[in-house]
Amino acid sequence: MSEIFCEIQDQFAFVTISNPSCLNAINMDMWNALTLHFKELHANEDLRCIIIRGAHGQFASGADVQEFATVRNTLADGMRYHNQTIAASLNAITECRHPVVAAIEGVCVGGGLEIAISCDIRIASPYARFGIPINKLGFPLAPKELQSLLSLTGKAVALEILLEGRILNGLEAKERGLVQRLAGDVAQEALETAKRIAQGAPLAARLNKKFIRRLSFVPERLNDQEQLEAFSFLETQDYQEGVMGFLAKQIPVFTGK
Amino acid sequence: MSEIFCEIQDQFAFVTISNPSCLNAINMDMWNALTLHFKELHANEDLRCIIIRGAHGQFASGADVQEFATVRNTLADGMRYHNQTIAASLNAITECRHPVVAAIEGVCVGGGLEIAISCDIRIASPYARFGIPINKLGFPLAPKELQSLLSLTGKAVALEILLEGRILNGLEAKERGLVQRLAGDVAQEALETAKRIAQGAPLAARLNKKFIRRLSFVPERLNDQEQLEAFSFLETQDYQEGVMGFLAKQIPVFTGK
Amino acid sequence: MSEIFCEIQDQFAFVTISNPSCLNAINMDMWNALTLHFKELHANEDLRCIIIRGAHGQFASGADVQEFATVRNTLADGMRYHNQTIAASLNAITECRHPVVAAIEGVCVGGGLEIAISCDIRIASPYARFGIPINKLGFPLAPKELQSLLSLTGKAVALEILLEGRILNGLEAKERGLVQRLAGDVAQEALETAKRIAQGAPLAARLNKKFIRRLSFVPERLNDQEQLEAFSFLETQDYQEGVMGFLAKQIPVFTGK
Repeated sequence: MSEIFCEIQDQFAFVTISNPSCLNAINMDMWNALTLHFKELHANEDLRCIIIRGAHGQFASGADVQEFATVRNTLADGMRYHNQTIAASLNAITECRHPVVAAIEGVCVGGGLEIAISCDIRIASPYARFGIPINKLGFPLAPKELQSLLSLTGKAVALEILLEGRILNGLEAKERGLVQRLAGDVAQEALETAKRIAQGAPLAARLNKKFIRRLSFVPERLNDQEQLEAFSFLETQDYQEGVMGFLAKQIPVFTGK
Repeated sequence: MSEIFCEIQDQFAFVTISNPSCLNAINMDMWNALTLHFKELHANEDLRCIIIRGAHGQFASGADVQEFATVRNTLADGMRYHNQTIAASLNAITECRHPVVAAIEGVCVGGGLEIAISCDIRIASPYARFGIPINKLGFPLAPKELQSLLSLTGKAVALEILLEGRILNGLEAKERGLVQRLAGDVAQEALETAKRIAQGAPLAARLNKKFIRRLSFVPERLNDQEQLEAFSFLETQDYQEGVMGFLAKQIPVFTGK
Repeated sequence: MSEIFCEIQDQFAFVTISNPSCLNAINMDMWNALTLHFKELHANEDLRCIIIRGAHGQFASGADVQEFATVRNTLADGMRYHNQTIAASLNAITECRHPVVAAIEGVCVGGGLEIAISCDIRIASPYARFGIPINKLGFPLAPKELQSLLSLTGKAVALEILLEGRILNGLEAKERGLVQRLAGDVAQEALETAKRIAQGAPLAARLNKKFIRRLSFVPERLNDQEQLEAFSFLETQDYQEGVMGFLAKQIPVFTGK
């Protein structure tokens, strides 16, 4: 059964992404649960740090493509899905007053990588796998998610990841600034990181997090015309070909239409 | 004979910089040819990826200094040369709808590095050599080229490269984000990169490239007064000393005048 | 005795931070002396490069916490201390017309790291130690200093350094873009770097430095309300707890108040 778990132990909260049938792919209910959990954790003044992780040895394999035919199949649905549902989840992590550490094992791709990018510190296994191979599904990265990637890594990494659609290992991800540290025991290192954070003054952590967000490079907003162009892929044949190919486990044939 | 070759094979275009007498230095005719080739390739909807490379085991050694006495010797000429001729070439690469991969062997310095920086992905030999050692020629980087360097790497790399004028090897360039990957067989890895790009949906690649450019940090434009200051080097003794010294193969003596 | 030395040898100036009793901690007099020295060096047209270093095998251990009870204990004092005293020193380095190389051995933390970040090129020992562990002193990074950190490294490094308060070695600092090169003999490599800079045309170096600053990402200014929030830590119990704990060599107990 798909679920977002949230447990609180002392000053720490542990949020766990679980969807055992598909490497923790994240469906609409899970995106919404993630948003709610982080809003609740934000309001809990007793916390010092949140760790987000995946169950079953995986972080998360991205948005649940099985759902696309129902929840993301038209221009209006696609814009709502990305600009509202997913954006709300990622913003809830970014805007949470507490520091958030991502503990990353196994696959961390697509929407899973977007969740990790929205955290404050990423600890990963050298064997973790990173990427956004959606070019093979026939679509580009939605603009708000692209903005968060660019704000973290700059354009060279975004171009490499998105144009090639290659999967990177932990070392490659670290070299590109996608993760801060590699660890053999990811859970242990993430917990030690959370403890180091908890040794500092919590108000200092909150001000640092808030003003780092305030003072970092944030790409401009797109205007309405650009928004429509960014989501125009939803009306292409190649989008249907890519998503259908993925679901049918067939290699898609893209024609540029 | 100096030339920019362009060959199309299936869905790929190969642009080759060649000027065998001087490590593929790029003269005015070559800058103009590069602009025209990339405008044509941009218009060719059948392409999936462009690879740019140098002939004779070198990428490119920069702008052709031999020409400076005739095409870049006054304030007006210098501003036209950089803000129009070179800027048009680099913009044609950056604004080309297709992904562009740079395959870098040998020297990749000055204007050669600027071409590489304007591409989307850079694959290099560990033995390639990178830098912009124009401080030894008596002049600073022109503002549009500085903007493209800063947009890729940020200021620490720009300061190190420009103030010291040191030549970096492939590993040093990769550590600084100037190249994405090193490869023993650069041509082969660039081709495999192009094939990975071509396996994705072409419209997705084009939207990704376009919106990464749109949403990345772009330095502000300089005003007219700043433009004049940025090009003021053309009226210094040290500029003449540096260029003359280079052509005469003598070490210049700079006086700060 | 605490002091900022400044010696000129040929075309080079050597600025040395010295406060032997406390790993070169920087007190108000030293911040002011640093400002004055760099303003004088800026005005000296004969120079080609400035090297800044610490005495006694250390770079600098940060602002002198001993003084905080007298010079930085109220909201008004804290804003004056950071926005005027420290900002003036860091700006004098950044705006100095000459290239500035930091030669970093031993501790380079807090205000010491801020000085290093304000230089143009950082050469460090693999055994140097970097960080801003002020979360353990109960306060966040002041906004102007945060802006200079973000302008150099981007947000991932700022979040890791500030939220965890961990101390990094030279290799970790290099991986994060905090330093450009590691060297066994830091003094020697810094001098060779200065010599490479001096081999170039001085006006080219000055224009490069000036326009790199002009064209780099600079975070927005905070408004008055945000300034007050950023310095609100000065009125918290945890700030007193952190600073008193440090001076008494006791582990502080933070309550979030």
